[in-house]
Amino acid sequence: MNMLVDGEWRTDAYDSTNEEGEFDRSESSFRDWLDGSVAAAGEAPNSSEFEPESGRYHLYICRACPWAHRAAMTRQLRGLEDDISISLVQPERYDEGWEFSEEHPDPFHDYEYLREVYTDADPDYTGRVTVPVLWDKQEETIVNNESSEIMRMLDTAFDGNEFSLYPEDLRGEIDEIVDAIYDPINNGVYRAGFAGTQDAYEDAVDDLFDALDHWEEVLADQRYLAGDGERLTLADVAMFATLVRFDHVYHTHFKCNRRAIHEYPNLWGYTKDLYQTPGIEETVNMDHITRHYYVSHGDLNPTRIVAVGPDIDFTEPHSRDELPGGPPAALTE
Amino acid sequence: MNMLVDGEWRTDAYDSTNEEGEFDRSESSFRDWLDGSVAAAGEAPNSSEFEPESGRYHLYICRACPWAHRAAMTRQLRGLEDDISISLVQPERYDEGWEFSEEHPDPFHDYEYLREVYTDADPDYTGRVTVPVLWDKQEETIVNNESSEIMRMLDTAFDGNEFSLYPEDLRGEIDEIVDAIYDPINNGVYRAGFAGTQDAYEDAVDDLFDALDHWEEVLADQRYLAGDGERLTLADVAMFATLVRFDHVYHTHFKCNRRAIHEYPNLWGYTKDLYQTPGIEETVNMDHITRHYYVSHGDLNPTRIVAVGPDIDFTEPHSRDELPGGPPAALTE
Repeated sequence: MNMLVDGEWRTDAYDSTNEEGEFDRSESSFRDWLDGSVAAAGEAPNSSEFEPESGRYHLYICRACPWAHRAAMTRQLRGLEDDISISLVQPERYDEGWEFSEEHPDPFHDYEYLREVYTDADPDYTGRVTVPVLWDKQEETIVNNESSEIMRMLDTAFDGNEFSLYPEDLRGEIDEIVDAIYDPINNGVYRAGFAGTQDAYEDAVDDLFDALDHWEEVLADQRYLAGDGERLTLADVAMFATLVRFDHVYHTHFKCNRRAIHEYPNLWGYTKDLYQTPGIEETVNMDHITRHYYVSHGDLNPTRIVAVGPDIDFTEPHSRDELPGGPPAALTE
Repeated sequence: MNMLVDGEWRTDAYDSTNEEGEFDRSESSFRDWLDGSVAAAGEAPNSSEFEPESGRYHLYICRACPWAHRAAMTRQLRGLEDDISISLVQPERYDEGWEFSEEHPDPFHDYEYLREVYTDADPDYTGRVTVPVLWDKQEETIVNNESSEIMRMLDTAFDGNEFSLYPEDLRGEIDEIVDAIYDPINNGVYRAGFAGTQDAYEDAVDDLFDALDHWEEVLADQRYLAGDGERLTLADVAMFATLVRFDHVYHTHFKCNRRAIHEYPNLWGYTKDLYQTPGIEETVNMDHITRHYYVSHGDLNPTRIVAVGPDIDFTEPHSRDELPGGPPAALTE
């Protein structure tokens, strides 16, 4: 697979599986922080040269990507649409990596490929070219391309609509949940889909469904994941990005077909509840999601035919409002 | 894909899609009939040189194949285990076509590949090498390799347990149903899975789910497909062979993922009812089914990883016995 090596585009440089056939996600490379933003405990400094000025930063995302979705959801839920601009790349990704297009151009450089944004920030960059990218329009460089950091810094560096998805009293627990769901769920679907051996696949699927079973139980009594379950947090943002893609893509394309999310009463109610939370629906583009996965992974789906997906409706009643808590007033008033 | 051409094995001779990218199944080639057996109306002579003697004929099948399953189910339901012998091929099929193995040897010739049985019957054979094969041990030749004909002749040429899956008063209707479900359902899942274009795929999926929706409605009020719905017939044999494979294979591997059979209350109850009909369970081997599809189609599933499949239980209660009719006394007494 492809990556930049010393600033040169190589289509054969990146092997996503280790010797045991397990999917091994490479680490993100740009890891600066907006000044004053709060990282996960013990993970990073909370200040830097990047001032959180309104209008200075931009998010490059793809509507298909669950990692980019975390950033887009945080921006939207926290009312940062006027503070941070956003643009999309084409959902289909071929040998040249993420592309701009007439419909989804680069708003600043007229570049053809997202990798040019990376080499603009670092001409000798070595690593994968991924979304989301938090771009500094003033310094013309990449601040950060790690979604779990971008979602925390967007929430904590800007005032936005004055509530928080990462409130001080729940940070430790949110950190734990975001960590706990990463390996079996958020990355677990990729571990299943990109497994190179039957064993690696079955391990991933077992971990995934054990974790889904666990959260299905947790969500029987609480509306959201963290704390007393009454407040929407970044833990929910991270979980939703995987759940909303599950039945259309991961279930079929990544062979996570032991059970669909819409067959879990609580996880399905939870997914619909979040989908219907003001601000979230506009961050979901199922057409981009399905086109991306089925078309981009020729190694998994040589015909590149896009599966129709299940007849499910995210706007159906969910009855989760019978549980205590709910969306923050900033979103519903 | 592979086929025999003038008795020579060619791995590049068979193209399964037409110019529109639609899957085009080639016709079966050996079309003789057992003497005295009854064909579908207007389709074939009902007598031939092949006498229906007990012990003379053999079925080569694969437990994975839905067409072979029709023959195996008919043999089992009609109590012909002592009249017609049976053997399996390996479920995985590679470039050399269906194979025998130590576990599943050729009981008569010690051949390595099923294609040798075909060239034994006709040294200049041109066509695909498929299961089921009805083999005449006495004349050492193939009688027939077309499943819809084999199931009719097994039912009508032998006495077996004295009931019929193709009773005279329902033959016209059974013929119509077997015909009606072939294109959208039995072959429809293949039309979806092997489609070469998005349009051909979507047409196949639309036809498939329109047909499933139709039979879901029919089965609300009747236990079986034909007549007054009170009698098990060959129409059910043909339908079951597809439904039992659907959720584990067609839903994921062939992208028929609009809905699973276990999400249709009546089709799911019907599938469980048939599965639990004495004789049928032993014809179902889900391990062979999943291994065959996921491993054999490298062009659809290059990793050849076998999907785990859904947590569903064919032996669960089905409550279809509240409807009039039921399995024939010959099977339940």
